Amino acid sequence: MERVLSDEALAQLMADDVPFGDLTTDLLINGNQPLRIELGARYEMTVSGVEEVARMFEIKGATVTVHQQSGATIAAHQPILTAHGSAHALFTVWKSAQVLMEWMSGVASAAKRMVDGAQGIPVACTRKQVPYTKVLSVKAVRSGGAIMHRLGTSESILVFAEHRQFNPLDPQEMIAFLEQRSPEHKAIIEVHCVEDALNWAQAGAAVLQLDKFSPADIAKCKAYLVKHQLSTKLGIAGGVTPENITEFTSAGADLIVTSYPYYAKPKDVQVRFFES
Amino acid sequence: MERVLSDEALAQLMADDVPFGDLTTDLLINGNQPLRIELGARYEMTVSGVEEVARMFEIKGATVTVHQQSGATIAAHQPILTAHGSAHALFTVWKSAQVLMEWMSGVASAAKRMVDGAQGIPVACTRKQVPYTKVLSVKAVRSGGAIMHRLGTSESILVFAEHRQFNPLDPQEMIAFLEQRSPEHKAIIEVHCVEDALNWAQAGAAVLQLDKFSPADIAKCKAYLVKHQLSTKLGIAGGVTPENITEFTSAGADLIVTSYPYYAKPKDVQVRFFES
Amino acid sequence: MERVLSDEALAQLMADDVPFGDLTTDLLINGNQPLRIELGARYEMTVSGVEEVARMFEIKGATVTVHQQSGATIAAHQPILTAHGSAHALFTVWKSAQVLMEWMSGVASAAKRMVDGAQGIPVACTRKQVPYTKVLSVKAVRSGGAIMHRLGTSESILVFAEHRQFNPLDPQEMIAFLEQRSPEHKAIIEVHCVEDALNWAQAGAAVLQLDKFSPADIAKCKAYLVKHQLSTKLGIAGGVTPENITEFTSAGADLIVTSYPYYAKPKDVQVRFFES
Amino acid sequence: MERVLSDEALAQLMADDVPFGDLTTDLLINGNQPLRIELGARYEMTVSGVEEVARMFEIKGATVTVHQQSGATIAAHQPILTAHGSAHALFTVWKSAQVLMEWMSGVASAAKRMVDGAQGIPVACTRKQVPYTKVLSVKAVRSGGAIMHRLGTSESILVFAEHRQFNPLDPQEMIAFLEQRSPEHKAIIEVHCVEDALNWAQAGAAVLQLDKFSPADIAKCKAYLVKHQLSTKLGIAGGVTPENITEFTSAGADLIVTSYPYYAKPKDVQVRFFES
Amino acid sequence: MERVLSDEALAQLMADDVPFGDLTTDLLINGNQPLRIELGARYEMTVSGVEEVARMFEIKGATVTVHQQSGATIAAHQPILTAHGSAHALFTVWKSAQVLMEWMSGVASAAKRMVDGAQGIPVACTRKQVPYTKVLSVKAVRSGGAIMHRLGTSESILVFAEHRQFNPLDPQEMIAFLEQRSPEHKAIIEVHCVEDALNWAQAGAAVLQLDKFSPADIAKCKAYLVKHQLSTKLGIAGGVTPENITEFTSAGADLIVTSYPYYAKPKDVQVRFFES
Amino acid sequence: MERVLSDEALAQLMADDVPFGDLTTDLLINGNQPLRIELGARYEMTVSGVEEVARMFEIKGATVTVHQQSGATIAAHQPILTAHGSAHALFTVWKSAQVLMEWMSGVASAAKRMVDGAQGIPVACTRKQVPYTKVLSVKAVRSGGAIMHRLGTSESILVFAEHRQFNPLDPQEMIAFLEQRSPEHKAIIEVHCVEDALNWAQAGAAVLQLDKFSPADIAKCKAYLVKHQLSTKLGIAGGVTPENITEFTSAGADLIVTSYPYYAKPKDVQVRFFES
Repeated sequence: MERVLSDEALAQLMADDVPFGDLTTDLLINGNQPLRIELGARYEMTVSGVEEVARMFEIKGATVTVHQQSGATIAAHQPILTAHGSAHALFTVWKSAQVLMEWMSGVASAAKRMVDGAQGIPVACTRKQVPYTKVLSVKAVRSGGAIMHRLGTSESILVFAEHRQFNPLDPQEMIAFLEQRSPEHKAIIEVHCVEDALNWAQAGAAVLQLDKFSPADIAKCKAYLVKHQLSTKLGIAGGVTPENITEFTSAGADLIVTSYPYYAKPKDVQVRFFES
Repeated sequence: MERVLSDEALAQLMADDVPFGDLTTDLLINGNQPLRIELGARYEMTVSGVEEVARMFEIKGATVTVHQQSGATIAAHQPILTAHGSAHALFTVWKSAQVLMEWMSGVASAAKRMVDGAQGIPVACTRKQVPYTKVLSVKAVRSGGAIMHRLGTSESILVFAEHRQFNPLDPQEMIAFLEQRSPEHKAIIEVHCVEDALNWAQAGAAVLQLDKFSPADIAKCKAYLVKHQLSTKLGIAGGVTPENITEFTSAGADLIVTSYPYYAKPKDVQVRFFES
Repeated sequence: MERVLSDEALAQLMADDVPFGDLTTDLLINGNQPLRIELGARYEMTVSGVEEVARMFEIKGATVTVHQQSGATIAAHQPILTAHGSAHALFTVWKSAQVLMEWMSGVASAAKRMVDGAQGIPVACTRKQVPYTKVLSVKAVRSGGAIMHRLGTSESILVFAEHRQFNPLDPQEMIAFLEQRSPEHKAIIEVHCVEDALNWAQAGAAVLQLDKFSPADIAKCKAYLVKHQLSTKLGIAGGVTPENITEFTSAGADLIVTSYPYYAKPKDVQVRFFES
Repeated sequence: MERVLSDEALAQLMADDVPFGDLTTDLLINGNQPLRIELGARYEMTVSGVEEVARMFEIKGATVTVHQQSGATIAAHQPILTAHGSAHALFTVWKSAQVLMEWMSGVASAAKRMVDGAQGIPVACTRKQVPYTKVLSVKAVRSGGAIMHRLGTSESILVFAEHRQFNPLDPQEMIAFLEQRSPEHKAIIEVHCVEDALNWAQAGAAVLQLDKFSPADIAKCKAYLVKHQLSTKLGIAGGVTPENITEFTSAGADLIVTSYPYYAKPKDVQVRFFES
Repeated sequence: MERVLSDEALAQLMADDVPFGDLTTDLLINGNQPLRIELGARYEMTVSGVEEVARMFEIKGATVTVHQQSGATIAAHQPILTAHGSAHALFTVWKSAQVLMEWMSGVASAAKRMVDGAQGIPVACTRKQVPYTKVLSVKAVRSGGAIMHRLGTSESILVFAEHRQFNPLDPQEMIAFLEQRSPEHKAIIEVHCVEDALNWAQAGAAVLQLDKFSPADIAKCKAYLVKHQLSTKLGIAGGVTPENITEFTSAGADLIVTSYPYYAKPKDVQVRFFES
Repeated sequence: MERVLSDEALAQLMADDVPFGDLTTDLLINGNQPLRIELGARYEMTVSGVEEVARMFEIKGATVTVHQQSGATIAAHQPILTAHGSAHALFTVWKSAQVLMEWMSGVASAAKRMVDGAQGIPVACTRKQVPYTKVLSVKAVRSGGAIMHRLGTSESILVFAEHRQFNPLDPQEMIAFLEQRSPEHKAIIEVHCVEDALNWAQAGAAVLQLDKFSPADIAKCKAYLVKHQLSTKLGIAGGVTPENITEFTSAGADLIVTSYPYYAKPKDVQVRFFES
């Protein structure tokens, strides 16, 4: 996968951790001696952030061999990346690189578990990323096979109850209005109960986002769509986890919408130093 | 607590989510109508990020009343913040603000649980923050009553096994060397077994960082220190959770070092809109 | 309309023009004397950039009265904005403000002419803005009543011939594939001849982007859609100007896609100084 | 010519257009396949922006052959630049690169037409660039053979009527004052009628900027200077176009001052993809 | 004088010094208690940076009274600025503010001494500022009454020997060439010996920059100019200090060019805290 | 030594000096001709900034040979760096590079003189760097062999009289409090007289910072510590120069704390151009 952070952004990340050199290393180690660092999986994991970590080492003058690209699912103890460089370089990059890879791989692995359970139905991640991690979060969930739901609010139409609270149009009117005024976007409608779902489907909504629906209620909606030959798609949001995702997709979901992977625990990456 | 992000940084966060206006809102709602938005706790939580969220609303021209400052622990359904402004402003800020406050409050609440279990022993959080969240993460753990372990590697000495791997000095020599060369910093030594701990204590280490020690092994170290009248402090890192933290502090820890709060689940914040 | 540039960005614009003070003014004028500056329309125009210009004066300590907001269409000689401040402030802001307002108003006025001719059909502007002017260009065309076609390529599907050149799927297959894999986005297909248009309409394309079609050919497509009861929308791109836009909308366009306004000539803004 | 934008600035331009990947390309094309892209002139043009576009492709990992450097005037259908790279890279860079080159070449070609008509008299472009395009605009007009009038207001003296409105000195006094206080800069005086021009020439102005003067009035000023053996230079500003520039230079201009090229229409660049 | 750094730049300066709070203050002082801080001159000095320091306090929520503006020359013990705010705010700003004001006032005071000795001849400071201090350095020397020589190399012509090393034109040809090609700028020529100076004056150079000339040699040049009725100005660069500047101006300098003030020692500012 | 500024930061420095090309060079010299530039010491000096300067030339396309790395102390006339590149590149980089290297070498040489006089006692530089030069200043003083005192206020405890002014604890209480609350940092106490020094030593302060103490008073403190077998370290701040530093270290200092090198005069670097 493509690297998504610029040299400047990666240098900033390292500078936040090592703004003026690593004092301990500078005191204790000959920084010019050539060393080797190896990063590997401690447990099974879907890897992400490899291209960013590789570049971090390169920025500090090390040469890097990438064993696994972002998106690969690997077994415990498999090597991910090896770098050769000066002690100074490798010790400087070490923790920033490890933390980034562990965190992104945690997100990617969680996304992968969702995708694996989704039986081919797309898993779309929301815009509720941890603040200031958007670029990395998007790459991480894509590393796990997920797609993006909305990247922001400027290029898609998702009508929340809060919008309807301040707009007088009925469903049919609103669908027609949106279709005429914004003909290049699908009107997606978030609903909170079966009755609303059926009303909006009948009104011609392209996609319904069913918020916190049980699988049983999803099945009711699906049956209605089939019966009335409506092409409305069903997106499911709220409460979906790797453990229960199959229940939702089996019930008739066309799309799973989730923030679950963003808050996953990091996946341990083992780091070892060697004389080069 | 003080706001830790500049206007420019907060504007960037909002622009990442709403780069060119909220299309749905712009299509459906009269942006000039005055509205009120209320943010409140859905469950008990330690709040963080309030000052940042307040400023986000102000940047967009809204006026804000803060009911709870960062650091407060509040009951479910308690109000946190109210803003009055145009529909355009409130809908633009809405989700960025909510996501930031939920995530920071999740971190703060997890830190609070650690602190509550620590019996007065300081809980110090590591530099393993989610990438690019350092400023917010530090504020969030402080909102929960924790302190910072290291903010980077440039102003403290923490000797890892990886440093000793490439340095020939024995403990006594190394302590003396560090004390002479860097007289303003304590030498902190990370160790992985009791034997090493006792050796370094005997050599005069100011602080030992005991990595993944059981409470029983901590107690052994503590007993040794008492017996030999050594002033070495014991920091405990690895495997500490809100559930087991008291076992560690009871065993003799002087400091708990943890990354646990950084990966906590967000705390739900309820958002409601009203006509002003 | 909302201001779309931050203080930092506006300060940068002024610093690019007056990096270290205005040498002529500093030599010749008492910078502390209070003056008044008035900006007004030289000819009829649709104004844009007023909120940005107002903020530029405020950043330098002046107080501003806005007579016309962005989006207003005004007659020659009508006042737009008045600022009171020190000579130093007003002379510093002068040209940067004037150039910004003249250029944005030129774009807005061109967009307005397109919208006026479009008979209620939406006019959508492309992503071909002058480099580094995206934020201002989007505001300017919206000031003229236009909407945005695509804000980038990450949140919409627009299939160019260049994509089809490297993809083997036939229209029906491709539409089905896109609908399943990306259920929240409309598949928009750019075509260059009537035959292709009809094929893709038949295959179920949500929107066709007809590139450089004559009104006659548009009418052919429209007739086909009506006859076969197809809901495909027709977007028209290429060669549309304020002079000929009605021919295109009359021929059956559902949407006009254009870059025309971005390269419009600036609209003169008259600037006069007075003793305050 | 030298590249004038940093990697960071070019990456930003591409990210504005393709913030999170090109959705259409990612869905339809194998991003890893090697392709070739060719950019060429659709009509005769003076090229500009080639070095920036070349770097954009390189940043994404492509290899580039430049056929024509910025500043070259080439015939229709001549190749400008070829790049080899992954489908992912080439499709990502495509439109940002094309738009930049088309716009800069439009500016350069307009400047070239002015220079061609100026009979060896320098054509100097003003500081009225489209906002936020200063660096590119300056390169573009230089690509066309023009020079810069003022780059800002901090390092040159140009006395407008607005300055004289608030300064009591008469021409002779003002020239002497400026010469003493700022001995390294020429005093340039903008005037709006022949009478003022002659007064200031008599007072010793180094350069007069004749604002919206007819060729006949320029000739009158020139005759006066010759008759009185004054070394004052005549710069002409306002109303000069490629069509009429020779009339102005023939009338005695020493310098043409113009903003004309900045608002020129882009020059079409043809882009074609091939299997590598 | 006008403030020359943005809020963002000032916040960055403070964050460089106090990135995550002042640990000592946070441990020992109740941050919410209201305090007063007073900054005053320890010795006679020309003050600079007051507006920047005032804004630093304001950014942190304090209210400020400015007693002396940048450019004022004040006696020992005179108050400069008083701020009221929380202990947290005042202790955070303290040292960054003090260091900035002391350093700028050192530069300003050195410039002032040069200006005082120059007998009305302009003192122009070079572009050899301490790296990354350009904006502050320019303000500081202006606070002392000096002007700027060159702000960069893009808007003035200064011909060094190194340019002539690679250009074949003789003085007369070069002056004519520059005058024709760049009619809005004076040609300034740096020379290193009297003979060259006279040659270039004879050739019509507008300004000569005499590099490391003794007062005696300056007087020779001046005499030559007077005798031959040449209007060439003499700028003096190299070796000028407050102690000897009068010798240079008395010898016939029209301009002193110097980097001397940039490297001046800071001027002590006394800081005291009080209960509010 | 490692380069401490990013490409972006170095490009910014050059752009501040040569924002739109060097006008004189562009007018007079064929920019494409290959030249060689040589930088060498004019007098004996400790070099710093070499890696930054080397990168500046590389950014503009030149190839560089480094003869002396930062930290080397070299004799007059020794070569430091040679670059080959186009005339355009070398003339653009010239002065920015020279100014940076001269200034950093001035700081480094001053630090070196302090270190040479310190008899093996560490010389630690304060956080009072010239504003906005922190990164370069830290490198420069390290080039001279000095270490850093504090890099900011967030990761060390230094108790000033101003802190004690608003805190009621007596020395023993305060030391105990700080040790319990912040067990990973040494409590450093600044004192202004011998009596206070002895009190705080007795209370267990890890390090005393003796502000403006005479050598005689330092000796008194040292004698007391020896007599009472106290391990308190003595840091000396205020009034130390290369001329008198040995008196302080001989009197018993364990550390010299100084801002002296930051304000040193630049060290001249000779620059010569040659045909390549």
